[in-house]
Amino acid sequence: MSLDQAAVKPHEQLNAALETEMGRVNDLIRDRMASKHAPRIPEVTAHLVEAGGKRLRPMLTLASAKMCGYDGDYHLNLAAAVEFIHTATLLHDDVVDESGQRRGRPTANLLWDNKSSVLVGDYLFARSFQLMVETGNLRVLDILSNAAATIAEGEVLQLTAAQNLATDEAIYLQVVRGKTAALFSAAMEVGGVIAEIDHVQVQALFDYGDALGIAFQIVDDLLDYQGQTAATGKNIGDDFRERKLTLPVIKAVALASDKERAFWIRTIEKGDQRDGDLDHALALLNKYNTLSATRDDALAWSEKAKTALQSVPDHEIRQMLIDLADYVVARVN
Amino acid sequence: MSLDQAAVKPHEQLNAALETEMGRVNDLIRDRMASKHAPRIPEVTAHLVEAGGKRLRPMLTLASAKMCGYDGDYHLNLAAAVEFIHTATLLHDDVVDESGQRRGRPTANLLWDNKSSVLVGDYLFARSFQLMVETGNLRVLDILSNAAATIAEGEVLQLTAAQNLATDEAIYLQVVRGKTAALFSAAMEVGGVIAEIDHVQVQALFDYGDALGIAFQIVDDLLDYQGQTAATGKNIGDDFRERKLTLPVIKAVALASDKERAFWIRTIEKGDQRDGDLDHALALLNKYNTLSATRDDALAWSEKAKTALQSVPDHEIRQMLIDLADYVVARVN
Repeated sequence: MSLDQAAVKPHEQLNAALETEMGRVNDLIRDRMASKHAPRIPEVTAHLVEAGGKRLRPMLTLASAKMCGYDGDYHLNLAAAVEFIHTATLLHDDVVDESGQRRGRPTANLLWDNKSSVLVGDYLFARSFQLMVETGNLRVLDILSNAAATIAEGEVLQLTAAQNLATDEAIYLQVVRGKTAALFSAAMEVGGVIAEIDHVQVQALFDYGDALGIAFQIVDDLLDYQGQTAATGKNIGDDFRERKLTLPVIKAVALASDKERAFWIRTIEKGDQRDGDLDHALALLNKYNTLSATRDDALAWSEKAKTALQSVPDHEIRQMLIDLADYVVARVN
Repeated sequence: MSLDQAAVKPHEQLNAALETEMGRVNDLIRDRMASKHAPRIPEVTAHLVEAGGKRLRPMLTLASAKMCGYDGDYHLNLAAAVEFIHTATLLHDDVVDESGQRRGRPTANLLWDNKSSVLVGDYLFARSFQLMVETGNLRVLDILSNAAATIAEGEVLQLTAAQNLATDEAIYLQVVRGKTAALFSAAMEVGGVIAEIDHVQVQALFDYGDALGIAFQIVDDLLDYQGQTAATGKNIGDDFRERKLTLPVIKAVALASDKERAFWIRTIEKGDQRDGDLDHALALLNKYNTLSATRDDALAWSEKAKTALQSVPDHEIRQMLIDLADYVVARVN
């Protein structure tokens, strides 16, 4: 990435290139999160939707459709549907995680209650399908209902896998696909499907989103052990304290001696953590170089994302998506 | 209803007439609630799906399709989809209500946790849309995504309306449509749509399901104040103790003197309930005859359901559905 490009971040470039469409998607989101009968719904939704997230997922759909030469209006529906699925997932996640904060603000479950978070999430999920039905395109309904199933399945898997030392890299990948990559890949894919491009290129869009999402999540997990608090909004070792079995730890567990294994069982599986345990965990990650191995994995997924886009015709948006794949791993590279 | 008919309940007659199809729907449900990656999902789902509910909603879809002469297989998909939406709603309701029991068994949120109930509900919801997509019929997707939105909207409305004395009969009806009638009417409607009957008859199916669902819910609310514990599995006055503003109370509030209004504000809005309050509430319901007025409403909705079916051609299933509308209100008539 050149210095000039670095000055304007790729998602900001995309935002600028898609400014008109993003504005129309935001209007559509505001229109569809309304409820004639239950004013609580737009209150809760607005709290989250207006909180200043990057709108990365709907942007991917718009970018994909534009790059594929689509000139209709249904990409707006799909982008709004993707954002609604994402928002519904966040609302339900906050109930599941018993979270108190998201994006630096109190969560909806704290401001209202768990009930509102569950039911408003359900409402947005239903609304997302209404938006898809309006496109009259069964393939996008197929893709996004599959993605929704993968997301929920991945989250359930995470419930049982997160504190279980038997969780290996294959299970981790499955969880990450559910948590992050499934909606990234579907967001890309439906943009191409609505533009009626051929199957090979649709697969390329899927592969890009899948690899980008995985790289994104691995970087997130890595930064938890080596990031700066200011850059991530998290404290070093939050995942360890919350007993989350993420990739750096999974790699260290796979190589652990019996004594080290006993340490991971005590701290992660049993949750019996004492002073100095985080330092010892970090020492074990360093001993086996799992942080750099994890970084290598993130870089490999980023490369995979970029390679996938080679089968899509050249376009200014394509270059921005390639830059985005670089940017996602830039924080750890 | 003759004594012969009364011996075999209408939903049992329907069950017998649709036995083969119901068996195939149950197989489909079992097949689709499986998860390759997350065994927790079928555990939680089986707990609820196998708990011996009447499967009334999928039966309505099968009955509707058969009565309309449908001879394909997609009604099985739609019946399973309807049951998945219902099951997802129950899982989320139990989290919302913080319930400990359903159908005489511990709820999933108690046996596992709220997390599992939320996420497995999401999974079933996604699965229901996959089942619909397989039919290739956009109208059924439209109908069921609208129903899902109405359900969630009604439940959110209930959160704010249940303990608010400003809740009138119109708002009550909106909540009931969300809680019960929306899925009944959609279940009927999609059976006709898949059979490609004309619009007038589809509307009749909708009207039947809508009125049946409303009658069903009003009877439920009425029995809470006058039923036998053994017959309903509930104790008299549970709704009062839980401060739910149901139809008998709404009618009494509308006619209340200032002093009576203060009583309802204290017991329902503020939740300050003392010994003897339930008896006083029952006395007020009797003073204004709101239990019999509520019963009249239930009977009127039951009549409306039966009348709607008159525009559908005669069929043995049609008679069973008419009997079902009688049966729903028989407990209070």
